[in-house]
Amino acid sequence: MFFASDNSGPVHPKIMQRVMEANSGYAMPYGNDDIMDEVRSGIRETFEAPDAAVYLVATGTAANALALACYTQPWQTIFCAQHSHIEEDECNAPEFYAGGAKLTLVPTDDKMTPEGLSNAIARRAGRNVHIAQAGPVSITQTTEFGGVHTLEELRALTAVAKAADLPVHLDGARFANALVKLGCTPAEMTWKSGVDVVSFGGTKNGCMGVEAVIFFDPQKAWEFELRRKRGAHLFSKHRYLSAQMAAYLEDSLWQDMARSANSVCARLAKGLTTAGAELINTPDANIIFTRFPRAVHQKLHADGAKYYVLDGDYTSGPADEMLGARLVCDWSMTDELVDQFLSHF
Amino acid sequence: MFFASDNSGPVHPKIMQRVMEANSGYAMPYGNDDIMDEVRSGIRETFEAPDAAVYLVATGTAANALALACYTQPWQTIFCAQHSHIEEDECNAPEFYAGGAKLTLVPTDDKMTPEGLSNAIARRAGRNVHIAQAGPVSITQTTEFGGVHTLEELRALTAVAKAADLPVHLDGARFANALVKLGCTPAEMTWKSGVDVVSFGGTKNGCMGVEAVIFFDPQKAWEFELRRKRGAHLFSKHRYLSAQMAAYLEDSLWQDMARSANSVCARLAKGLTTAGAELINTPDANIIFTRFPRAVHQKLHADGAKYYVLDGDYTSGPADEMLGARLVCDWSMTDELVDQFLSHF
Amino acid sequence: MFFASDNSGPVHPKIMQRVMEANSGYAMPYGNDDIMDEVRSGIRETFEAPDAAVYLVATGTAANALALACYTQPWQTIFCAQHSHIEEDECNAPEFYAGGAKLTLVPTDDKMTPEGLSNAIARRAGRNVHIAQAGPVSITQTTEFGGVHTLEELRALTAVAKAADLPVHLDGARFANALVKLGCTPAEMTWKSGVDVVSFGGTKNGCMGVEAVIFFDPQKAWEFELRRKRGAHLFSKHRYLSAQMAAYLEDSLWQDMARSANSVCARLAKGLTTAGAELINTPDANIIFTRFPRAVHQKLHADGAKYYVLDGDYTSGPADEMLGARLVCDWSMTDELVDQFLSHF
Amino acid sequence: MFFASDNSGPVHPKIMQRVMEANSGYAMPYGNDDIMDEVRSGIRETFEAPDAAVYLVATGTAANALALACYTQPWQTIFCAQHSHIEEDECNAPEFYAGGAKLTLVPTDDKMTPEGLSNAIARRAGRNVHIAQAGPVSITQTTEFGGVHTLEELRALTAVAKAADLPVHLDGARFANALVKLGCTPAEMTWKSGVDVVSFGGTKNGCMGVEAVIFFDPQKAWEFELRRKRGAHLFSKHRYLSAQMAAYLEDSLWQDMARSANSVCARLAKGLTTAGAELINTPDANIIFTRFPRAVHQKLHADGAKYYVLDGDYTSGPADEMLGARLVCDWSMTDELVDQFLSHF
Repeated sequence: MFFASDNSGPVHPKIMQRVMEANSGYAMPYGNDDIMDEVRSGIRETFEAPDAAVYLVATGTAANALALACYTQPWQTIFCAQHSHIEEDECNAPEFYAGGAKLTLVPTDDKMTPEGLSNAIARRAGRNVHIAQAGPVSITQTTEFGGVHTLEELRALTAVAKAADLPVHLDGARFANALVKLGCTPAEMTWKSGVDVVSFGGTKNGCMGVEAVIFFDPQKAWEFELRRKRGAHLFSKHRYLSAQMAAYLEDSLWQDMARSANSVCARLAKGLTTAGAELINTPDANIIFTRFPRAVHQKLHADGAKYYVLDGDYTSGPADEMLGARLVCDWSMTDELVDQFLSHF
Repeated sequence: MFFASDNSGPVHPKIMQRVMEANSGYAMPYGNDDIMDEVRSGIRETFEAPDAAVYLVATGTAANALALACYTQPWQTIFCAQHSHIEEDECNAPEFYAGGAKLTLVPTDDKMTPEGLSNAIARRAGRNVHIAQAGPVSITQTTEFGGVHTLEELRALTAVAKAADLPVHLDGARFANALVKLGCTPAEMTWKSGVDVVSFGGTKNGCMGVEAVIFFDPQKAWEFELRRKRGAHLFSKHRYLSAQMAAYLEDSLWQDMARSANSVCARLAKGLTTAGAELINTPDANIIFTRFPRAVHQKLHADGAKYYVLDGDYTSGPADEMLGARLVCDWSMTDELVDQFLSHF
Repeated sequence: MFFASDNSGPVHPKIMQRVMEANSGYAMPYGNDDIMDEVRSGIRETFEAPDAAVYLVATGTAANALALACYTQPWQTIFCAQHSHIEEDECNAPEFYAGGAKLTLVPTDDKMTPEGLSNAIARRAGRNVHIAQAGPVSITQTTEFGGVHTLEELRALTAVAKAADLPVHLDGARFANALVKLGCTPAEMTWKSGVDVVSFGGTKNGCMGVEAVIFFDPQKAWEFELRRKRGAHLFSKHRYLSAQMAAYLEDSLWQDMARSANSVCARLAKGLTTAGAELINTPDANIIFTRFPRAVHQKLHADGAKYYVLDGDYTSGPADEMLGARLVCDWSMTDELVDQFLSHF
Repeated sequence: MFFASDNSGPVHPKIMQRVMEANSGYAMPYGNDDIMDEVRSGIRETFEAPDAAVYLVATGTAANALALACYTQPWQTIFCAQHSHIEEDECNAPEFYAGGAKLTLVPTDDKMTPEGLSNAIARRAGRNVHIAQAGPVSITQTTEFGGVHTLEELRALTAVAKAADLPVHLDGARFANALVKLGCTPAEMTWKSGVDVVSFGGTKNGCMGVEAVIFFDPQKAWEFELRRKRGAHLFSKHRYLSAQMAAYLEDSLWQDMARSANSVCARLAKGLTTAGAELINTPDANIIFTRFPRAVHQKLHADGAKYYVLDGDYTSGPADEMLGARLVCDWSMTDELVDQFLSHF
């Protein structure tokens, strides 16, 4: 019953199989391997973007920080939601890669609103040498709180960015979970909605450690290659990154895994509601924030459940006090484990 | 007949096997996996360093840049050999990670001499706010030209560093190849010889992509962890890094692979000499720099050999003109392929 | 009637006189001039801090950014008020000098509250490699909105910092205006209240361009010297910085000028209130935020008054609509000019 | 008898006079003062460059580091002479401002040769992501060893840069001394010879602390303004920088001062030769490197002479041993002091 994160589960067997198959003979290093050609074509096709520049790195933070750095001058500021991953979970990596740029936080509990974004940008506007200059807008899809922007919501945000002539980055560490929720195409959720560059996550969704950075305008390609190398993120034995991504793309495995994760998550959400737990967020994808009595937390932990308890100590205190929990389902989570979890309510 | 680099060969089956075995159920992320405990113990034992701080990253450039950054202030300079990897092949990664520090190049064709190092340090000495301040000394073992410092040579260099109160980093991308050449212990080639931190390479020697950074003084441990995260080099699914390193260490597989690589390289060097080729370097480990006629280059390429031709175009020109070659043997190179290579002379 | 800023007025004649007197013969460069000895002694005496390390730079942004950088690691965050100068008016200079560190904004209209600061720090606490680590607290005295922290308020903030083991920086661009308001000693407003390093401003208070950075713990002295040089802020002909600061200190000229500025500002505030204008802030020192009808703005501008009109266009619109204004008085402002200003109401 | 540097002498009275005259009433801050308009026009006229972007900063290191940063990406390398000021005397400021870029040193005793520069560039050429990418070429005129490039020499160097499509920076801390030596126009020594941006020094040549950065192509203007602010080099009371530069330009005062400095330097060089001292460099401008007996050093120091003794301790050792000296003449040096100096031989 591991609900602590989607970064801790196993790699999908098909992906592991492809990594093993790649392990034969010599291969050109540094992204010049044949499998990367397959990946590049596959992503271009998947995103209906024949000119896109496509690169692989091994961590989501690398994907975000390098992608953003290509669009951020050191005297600029990146706009993002108050509780985004780039603000709260990357130990200043975006600032590091962007040479000392700033993050401007748009106040929100979850998704940015167009008004919030617009106000934040307005405060950095005008030809004023004293202030941090307006830089890219970074949107997270799925958000850290499990929310999925509708296409309308996405487009409303990118419209604000475009009106200020700012580029748009999409942090897609959980891109797949959002996509299957929306039932749209990858193109619709990215360039057709005004996204310039996307971190297309694989690691949280069944890969070993691989993320694609996709530039819909290939103008930044060479700069990215230099930044990736300078950041020490260019793999010599690159084929093992390529192999993961190739298998991930094949027969839409990435969507199947996300669909499975979302599905068990929905079952869990429904079960929690039925059992009287309070849902704090809208579990659009594979993350639930919920609240239930300490006694249940204790039973769950006694049975070996793993997840983050929020706002307090579950081990001691009134049995009926409500304590929060974050529950994340990855591709490998099963209905059986969900039901076992729910059996403790 | 792939002699282009030791970064392009396959992963050793035992390592791949261990990666697959690790792919079961959930594991704690970010280096808190159980296999990392095994790796930590294994490295401490291997290096006779019970207090060492041990970390894994996926690229050699990350290992070097992060290790050096822990010992370098932005206003300092790192001392290294003129043609070291950190100067010539890392696209300013050391400068990036060290916040804009400088590299001071000790003039040499291959290994630094104590005199050269001492002179370089002397020019950065004294309480003078105008100059780059003296920072760490970085030694490469095996060097980029295939040379291996004897323990005496190593100690002579670290003595110069210590006399100036400077820390010492060892770039050990080909640590194993040097160690088996010297027939000494890992402790002798590192902390017993005055090394403070080592990049202990795995990638070039049969791993998929893993390098250990080993601090013999654990004081820098927490800073390294923060720098690694900030540099986007902390893996969530860390167990797959751990698994590689665990298999690498087990039963001294790493030494076996290096011994094999060095052995076929020696066979190649001997064969080249016999065949009348000129050896440019002393092939202490698994790299040969040599020179032989264009006609032979042409025959080799016609037969599918892959390696770097130096100083010229092998496809056209006088048949008997001597052209250089860099030939690198990895763990998977065989006597048979070496003999096939030599058959063209 | 120049009320736009205190960075635009003339230099006090005594300061200019001292600069001219310094212009004789040769002087040791780079801060080794004799006048700097006088400055160092003067500041140590003024602040009752015989061991303080004292340095001069030419701009307030340099003083802040360099002082903070000495206490901030690149993976840390500086805590400051939401609308502080280092956040809003320094174009990422603090981030630049601190190697890509972050600023965490404590929500407030003006002064930070201990609760606000405490909450902000709490969110960066714990041994968690993923988050920006807690770094120094920067307090502005006088604030950007003209507020002066009482000693009790200052100590409440520094107590929060100390409880979290964080160093404290005081941005004292308008240090003098606050001091004469409080009627306390420089020691009381700094190290006796828990401040570790202060930017002691001169430029806004009658100097040409000089700020002192004062470290009450001299441990950071050499690092500051290197950072100042690396930042290109070490003056060769340093005596002209020293001369300004020497004259500024002599016979407490700095306090006399601040007293004068505060006094005319109080006269202006009183006059505005009498005239029916609305005061938005509490004009503790030399800055007023106020609101009065457009018609008055128009009359003032017609008479040549210079100041920032806030939230709108004063040139067109209803005559009785209230529009904001920021009015700043420097040392050279006179009662006569204030009365002339008020005569338009 | 102060020959230690040209950074330690007094400010020319006409410049000081202009600073005092500027000290009246209010002036627009941050470079928007009226005197700056005069400076801008004056420099454009002086350099026959009606479109040039012109900025002032207070130190030579700031001028160099900011100018270079506008032309250098963090993954690039600046090419410069081995013993240039930016390499040896700026404590990594160029690396800091250029975000961690590298300096590649062209081996030379003094001036770069076209061959040396060309070889250095060749080693950074080609589309190779692993190496530092070729960036700007920085030429020093007058060099640190007192040499002045002829226009032919300058053009030969810039031709090498242009052939590789690299921009050219001129470190003109002693621009004036070189110009009057060559007897050419400022345009000829800069843009007509292929220079893109120049640090036009004032501080070493009679100013208090001011350097102009002149971009002949104004495309970099806004970036420079942002970098200057972010670097904390934008002065609020900018008029006092402007006043210095205005007086410096007026009636070619800058050339008069340089001519005087060069002239007394030539007198000193001639006198030294006559007296049997050995000249080490060719004293084209206002700097002499020479060698004479320890006994003379002792007499000079006994008489209060100030200068750098090179390669040894003048206070003890054989009286006839030859020891080096660096002698620098500034605008205020006189024939009388030179003769007094020479009288000790």
